[in-house]
Amino acid sequence: MRSPDSPINVGLLGLGVVGGGVLSALSRNGSTVPRSVGRPIRVARILVRDPDKPRDVEFDRQILTADAASVLKDPSIDIVAEAMGGEYPALDYIRTALEAGKSVVTANKEVMAKHGPELLELAARRGAHLLFEASVGGGIPILGPLTRSLRGNEIRGIRAIINGTTNYILTKMSHEGTEFADALREAQELGYAEADPTNDVEGIDAGYKLAILASLAFHTRVAAEDIHLEGISRLTGRDFRYARELGYVIKLVAIATDRDGSVEARVHPALVPEDAPLAKVDGVLNAVEVEGDLVDRVLFHGRGAGSMPTASAMVGDILEVAWSMANGLPAAGFLTLDREVSLCPISDLVTRYYIRATVLDRAGVLAQMASILGNLQISIASVIQKEVGLNDGTAELVITTYHSRERDVQQALRELAGLDVVKEIGNLLRVEE
Amino acid sequence: MRSPDSPINVGLLGLGVVGGGVLSALSRNGSTVPRSVGRPIRVARILVRDPDKPRDVEFDRQILTADAASVLKDPSIDIVAEAMGGEYPALDYIRTALEAGKSVVTANKEVMAKHGPELLELAARRGAHLLFEASVGGGIPILGPLTRSLRGNEIRGIRAIINGTTNYILTKMSHEGTEFADALREAQELGYAEADPTNDVEGIDAGYKLAILASLAFHTRVAAEDIHLEGISRLTGRDFRYARELGYVIKLVAIATDRDGSVEARVHPALVPEDAPLAKVDGVLNAVEVEGDLVDRVLFHGRGAGSMPTASAMVGDILEVAWSMANGLPAAGFLTLDREVSLCPISDLVTRYYIRATVLDRAGVLAQMASILGNLQISIASVIQKEVGLNDGTAELVITTYHSRERDVQQALRELAGLDVVKEIGNLLRVEE
Repeated sequence: MRSPDSPINVGLLGLGVVGGGVLSALSRNGSTVPRSVGRPIRVARILVRDPDKPRDVEFDRQILTADAASVLKDPSIDIVAEAMGGEYPALDYIRTALEAGKSVVTANKEVMAKHGPELLELAARRGAHLLFEASVGGGIPILGPLTRSLRGNEIRGIRAIINGTTNYILTKMSHEGTEFADALREAQELGYAEADPTNDVEGIDAGYKLAILASLAFHTRVAAEDIHLEGISRLTGRDFRYARELGYVIKLVAIATDRDGSVEARVHPALVPEDAPLAKVDGVLNAVEVEGDLVDRVLFHGRGAGSMPTASAMVGDILEVAWSMANGLPAAGFLTLDREVSLCPISDLVTRYYIRATVLDRAGVLAQMASILGNLQISIASVIQKEVGLNDGTAELVITTYHSRERDVQQALRELAGLDVVKEIGNLLRVEE
Repeated sequence: MRSPDSPINVGLLGLGVVGGGVLSALSRNGSTVPRSVGRPIRVARILVRDPDKPRDVEFDRQILTADAASVLKDPSIDIVAEAMGGEYPALDYIRTALEAGKSVVTANKEVMAKHGPELLELAARRGAHLLFEASVGGGIPILGPLTRSLRGNEIRGIRAIINGTTNYILTKMSHEGTEFADALREAQELGYAEADPTNDVEGIDAGYKLAILASLAFHTRVAAEDIHLEGISRLTGRDFRYARELGYVIKLVAIATDRDGSVEARVHPALVPEDAPLAKVDGVLNAVEVEGDLVDRVLFHGRGAGSMPTASAMVGDILEVAWSMANGLPAAGFLTLDREVSLCPISDLVTRYYIRATVLDRAGVLAQMASILGNLQISIASVIQKEVGLNDGTAELVITTYHSRERDVQQALRELAGLDVVKEIGNLLRVEE
């Protein structure tokens, strides 16, 4: 037991974009930080790969170390703040810290999506806190509100834009008519996208975040690998133009819905009505819409990434733990992830669809296509036919449907692709009202 | 000490719209409520004026009482949920409950705006919780995120639409060209506005909520009576048309800004750029935008009033207290309202302005007006001149200014009103970028 005035010591893992933000945030306003805690907070040690590398932030370089054990096993470290990212070695470090009874604050969506339930159990067993607000939506308070303020609700669903990189690319494509490859290159140049953009562009990052959100919202364990993922690389400028003509914008949406104990969870590009709240979330911004039985819909909107916004969430969690410690409150878990639910396969999904196809520009084509759709009970809501202008005798046809079942639509696509008059199925997108 | 399985008893004060919502919310989903708490929660007694009055909700009518003491002084009642509204007797009841060491959850913005700091101190002395998420923004989680997830931030400002009644009226006026009196009557018919609409229409209700938000955000005590209030009854359909022409919508905004320890807090109608997030908050919806030094801007958006949304917030707080009790955690205050700040008078405000005046339709009028403004260092940003069509020789002139000081603008208005050519100053509105 140290004295009530002694500082609460934070061991920081990683001094990259997020770790640097946490360090400067905790160093900057000594005035407000202790105000809400009652004890000073100090970054006592920082784990880095190379302690000799030059750094932008000013601080006592003595606290740098390349030895993980000197952070994770030092009894003077109260809170471990993990800002490394990636599954390994972050997972091992978090486990070691929790085993040692230290509280952990992390921004690591991959670790929490894949190992969250196990780590939360470990934390509960060891009487430690494990907080991870920063893992979803950057600086936007979402996990706190979802699990505390909204906990009187039965959460029915989550609809979110939770990947800033893809939202930047889609906004470029939508507003400026940029094609995917160019928008991606621009995002890379601005530092919004990584050299290997797979994690963002293929929806993997959003899938991790949705797994965390859905698990907390539905009091269960939604595994990242159970989430249906589709990326944005097949989208073309034409899809955006057709969408606009129909009154929609295209967004990479992360949707989880609880249908009476059957959970549907998916990440894919979708047509969203242009006046829907999510349609107006542009650039690198994120937004999460939560629907609960009492509250109806609430929307949380802000910066979903970046050094200081992510630090905002991590520091909020650090202060929560520090406040708890300063007041002698034991850690008590309030997350329950033990509800049994079944995962609804994507083939069971019922929604509206957008089909873009290149067809021979001749009479009777639409009739043949409509017949296939009709036989599968898929009703057509609208048709747009355009000359593509290639002068090769083809035209482009865009069909939107009323609510239909995914497996029927997939069957229809296979049959459509088999028609002589259909040269190519360009894209299949879901339409989310 | 009761057994760990014994229910946590809630005493409910009031069974009107909000109290009825809390009762049915706590009665409805026995399955999820205990999940996050670990002990059953039971509404054990309800204070009503008339226990014999017929009620819509189904419940054991034995628990109704008209005797406040039988709720406030019964040792078996653990949590008092106040859903009566109004300053008295709610304030006395909350005091009595806290004195008795009971935790209190309240939706009462008037009591919290006027007596919050005193009541929070009392709660801390008695080791009781006092939670009031429902007092601002109905079901929108805002006080929780502001004081917990965002507590690493120095909050710079709050901009909010936090009165659903006026927002409904303004949306009507804006979208349908309805005049104020008609829109108010419609709001009354729909139950959105009370028979005496003063509290909503004059900004008093929004002022209470802003006092609470600003106090929490800036760790200080912003008294409701220190907030500059202007209502919406002077707005005309023409103001909305001019605003639209200039690229704005008109909203009743509640704004609190921390200018290095000088706090500016005001509620008034303002021109908001049509593409700003607050401009898109329509009907009875509410939104609160928080700006922090780390997080930049985050927006919280949802249903700011109504039975079930308000119940969502109250039940969230009840579950928070119940969870604390079930885990044997003592109540520990985490709100600090002891920071010394000065209140910035409205005359010191610097913003942009919109002035609408009826003038004689003759040459040289604008020159005379521009000269008055120029002498006070007020720069004109735009001018619209319209024939009003009264054929009485008058025209309507709308001037917007660049950033100017309020006291100079007020001086200019007095001088303008003194001009022979100015028949009437129709309205002065602030323009918030």
